[in-house]
Amino acid sequence: MVKDFEARSFSAVELIRTKRDGGTLTDEQIDWLIHAYTDGVVADEQMSSMAMAVLFRGLDDRELATWTQSMIDTGVRLDFSSLSRPTSDKHSTGGVGDKITLPLAPLVAACGVAVPQLSGRGLGHTGGTLDKMESIPGWRALLSNEEMMAQLEEVGAVICAAGDGLARADKKLYALRDVTGTVEAIPLIASSIMSKKIAEGTGALVLDVKVGSGAFMKNLDDARELASRMVALGKAAEVNTVALLTDMSTPLGLTAGNALEVTESVEVLAGGGPADVVELTLALAREMLQAAGSDADPEKALKDGSAMDVWKRMVRAQGGDPEATLPVAQNSDEVLAEADGVLTTLDAMAVGVAAWRLGAGRARKEDPVQAGAGVVMHAKPGDRVVKGQPLLTLHTDTPDAFARAREALVGGIEIGPEALDRQPLLIDRIS
Amino acid sequence: MVKDFEARSFSAVELIRTKRDGGTLTDEQIDWLIHAYTDGVVADEQMSSMAMAVLFRGLDDRELATWTQSMIDTGVRLDFSSLSRPTSDKHSTGGVGDKITLPLAPLVAACGVAVPQLSGRGLGHTGGTLDKMESIPGWRALLSNEEMMAQLEEVGAVICAAGDGLARADKKLYALRDVTGTVEAIPLIASSIMSKKIAEGTGALVLDVKVGSGAFMKNLDDARELASRMVALGKAAEVNTVALLTDMSTPLGLTAGNALEVTESVEVLAGGGPADVVELTLALAREMLQAAGSDADPEKALKDGSAMDVWKRMVRAQGGDPEATLPVAQNSDEVLAEADGVLTTLDAMAVGVAAWRLGAGRARKEDPVQAGAGVVMHAKPGDRVVKGQPLLTLHTDTPDAFARAREALVGGIEIGPEALDRQPLLIDRIS
Repeated sequence: MVKDFEARSFSAVELIRTKRDGGTLTDEQIDWLIHAYTDGVVADEQMSSMAMAVLFRGLDDRELATWTQSMIDTGVRLDFSSLSRPTSDKHSTGGVGDKITLPLAPLVAACGVAVPQLSGRGLGHTGGTLDKMESIPGWRALLSNEEMMAQLEEVGAVICAAGDGLARADKKLYALRDVTGTVEAIPLIASSIMSKKIAEGTGALVLDVKVGSGAFMKNLDDARELASRMVALGKAAEVNTVALLTDMSTPLGLTAGNALEVTESVEVLAGGGPADVVELTLALAREMLQAAGSDADPEKALKDGSAMDVWKRMVRAQGGDPEATLPVAQNSDEVLAEADGVLTTLDAMAVGVAAWRLGAGRARKEDPVQAGAGVVMHAKPGDRVVKGQPLLTLHTDTPDAFARAREALVGGIEIGPEALDRQPLLIDRIS
Repeated sequence: MVKDFEARSFSAVELIRTKRDGGTLTDEQIDWLIHAYTDGVVADEQMSSMAMAVLFRGLDDRELATWTQSMIDTGVRLDFSSLSRPTSDKHSTGGVGDKITLPLAPLVAACGVAVPQLSGRGLGHTGGTLDKMESIPGWRALLSNEEMMAQLEEVGAVICAAGDGLARADKKLYALRDVTGTVEAIPLIASSIMSKKIAEGTGALVLDVKVGSGAFMKNLDDARELASRMVALGKAAEVNTVALLTDMSTPLGLTAGNALEVTESVEVLAGGGPADVVELTLALAREMLQAAGSDADPEKALKDGSAMDVWKRMVRAQGGDPEATLPVAQNSDEVLAEADGVLTTLDAMAVGVAAWRLGAGRARKEDPVQAGAGVVMHAKPGDRVVKGQPLLTLHTDTPDAFARAREALVGGIEIGPEALDRQPLLIDRIS
C-alpha cells in the first residue's frame, strides 16, 4: 500500500521493506536510520524488525562500513595520538575461562606498546574482565578520560570500563537485539564490536574470535565471516586490525570464576600458569606488538618479571592492592571422574553455565557477582583420569547452587578409552 | 548465550529464535505469545521481530490455525445461530473501485440469506465500505450488537463497523505490522482477516482475493497461497469458506470515490451498471448463497427489484435516506486521451492513488475523507478512444489536489494500436 506517512516514519518503513526484500540501503539512509534510532525517532519495534531483516538478508561491505561509521558518529571518539608510544588493543568475542586480557595488557605494555583496554562486565555463561578485576580489593573500574590518558602514559596499560559516550547507538541497539532474537546477525555483531573499538581510538587491534560450544560463534564458517568483516571494518577506519580464530570448545586454563581467574593470570605473569593460557597470551601479544610496529619479544617480558611489574603498577594505579589476598568462596564441592580413561570432553558451555550458576556470572546487568565463586578444573581434555578422582571443584557462597551447577555439567564431561584428536587452540589468522 | 530471563521474557526471545531458525512453535507457545502480546507482556519490539521472522520462515498449517484461534480468543465471538435464516459473508482483500459489498449484501439478503457485513474504513489507495456508505446523508456505521441482530432478522442485511471487541490481538498486531514492514507476511494477512471473520460468527464466507497492480497481492502465486490458507482456516473453524481470485489490474466499474461508488452501486441494484461490477456481484452472490445452502437465483432478485428494496430498507434502518441527493464535489477536471487507438492500460494503482489524493481516501486513520471526491472513468481497457476525448473526470473539493492526482496517473494510462488480450475478471476459484 502506498501511504503518506510523515516523511520520517515513512522512511523507516521503506528502509525496512528495502532490506527485507533483499535490496541495499544507501549511505544516507543508513546514517539517517542509526541517528534517528538513537534519537528515538525510529521506534524500537521498527529497529527490531530491521535487525531481523538484516539477520536474514545481511549487509554488504559498503552498507556495513557506513552502518559502523554512523554508530561511531553517535558518540564521542577518543584520541591517543598525544601519547609517547603507539597503542594496541585486543578484543575477544567472549568465552569460558577467558582471562587473557589480565596477563596480556601488562605484558604488551611491558614491551613498549600502550594498551587501552576498555572492557565490560559479564552476562550469562561468559565472564567479564571488569568482574574479574573487581575481585582485587580496592580496584576500581571507572576512570575519567584524563586518568586513563595519564595511566596509559605512566604505566602503559589500563583496564577500565568503557564510558557511555562511545557509540551511543550501540548501547541502545545491543539492548534491543538482546530481547528480540537478533543478537546473532553477523553484520550487527561486527558493527557493535568495531564501532566501540574504532571510537576508542586505538591504533592497532587484535581480535580473538572464539569458535566452539562455549563461544558465541558455534561453527568455523560463521566465525571466519565475523572475523573477516571486522578486520575489513578496522582497516577501512585505519585501525591496523588482525584476527585470530581460537578454540572455545573447552574452557581456557584451569579456572572459570572471578578471583580464581585473577590468581591464574598472576601465575602466568609469574612465568607459570596453564600451557593454553600462556600460548594464547603470547600469540595475542605478538600480534598486538606487530600490529603496532614493534618487534619486541613478549616471552622475555614474561620471564624477566617486567610484565608482572606493569601488572602491579596497573592494579595500584586504579586503587587495587596486587598483594592482597583474594576472596575465597565459603563452600566447595567436588565433581569426580565416573570412569577410568581419558577425558575426551570438558564442554566450555557446560562449565560456563556451572560457574555462572555458582555465582560467578549474572543473568541481568544489575545482578551482583560473587568474587570467589566458580569452577577449578583438575583435568583437561586429553588427560588420563581414574575413576573417583576429582575432575572439578565447584566454589560458591550459596551452597544451594551446587545442584543446579551439577545439572549444567550433565553431558558436558565425557571419558573415553583413548584420546581424541584435539582441535588446535590457534585455528586460523585473518588479516 | 544462555540467559536466566524471567520466565515470560525468556520465552518471547526463545520463541523468536525458534521461528527465526526455521523451527515450528507449539500450540502452547503460540497461544501464550498472542495473549501475552495483547496484554503487553510481550513487547512491541519483540512481536515485530517475530513478525519479520514469520515473514521469512512462514507458519505451517497447524501453527497458522492456532495463531488464528488464539487471536479469536483475545476477543468476543458473535453468534448468529438464533437467526431464522442462515448467514453468509464476503470479504475482499481490497481494490480500487471495489464497491461490490454495496449491491451484494442486499442482493444476497433478498435471496433469503442474511449478510452480517462488518466493514472497515479505507487507508491509502483502497477505499473503505464504511466511507462509501457514510456519503449517504444520515447513515450511521455504528450499531450495537442488539441493533445488528434485529436488523439482520428484519431486513436481512447489515453493513456496519466491526466492534473493537472482535479479535483484540489483531487490531494491535495490524497497527504494529503497518509501521514495521511486516504487513506482507501471508500467514499474518490470513490470520488477520480470518480471525475477525470467524469471530464475527458467520456461517459461510466468500473471499474475494484480488490480484494485480491495485491489489495487495501483486502476483497470482501469492494470491493463490493467501486464498488457500484462508479457505483452510475457515473450514477448520467450521465456516463454509470459498475464495475467488479476481483481477485488480484495472479498477472495478467506472467510479472510484465514495458517493460516486454509491451511485454506481444503486445503478447495479436498479438492473444497470457496468458489466464488470454486475458480473462480480452476481458471481459472489452465487457463491455466498451456495455456501449457505441456498439455490436461489440472484439475477432474478436484481431484475425484480427485490434487491433494491432490501438496499433501501437497509439504508433506512441505519438512519440513511436512500432517496437523498448524494454529495457532489465542488471542482472537476478532465484527463483527455493523448492519442487515437485502444485503451490498453488503465492502471488500478494509478487510479486509486489519484482518487486518494483527490480526497476520497486517507493517509491516516484519523483523517477525514471527502464524500464527493474521486475519479469517474469514461473508458476501460479494450475500449477504442480518440485523441482529445475525456478518459477520466477528476472530482475534488480541494482543487490544489488536481496536480498531484495527475502525477499519480503518469504511466498508468496507455493507448495502443490494438486491444491486448485481457485478463478475465474471474481468475480462479479455491474451495
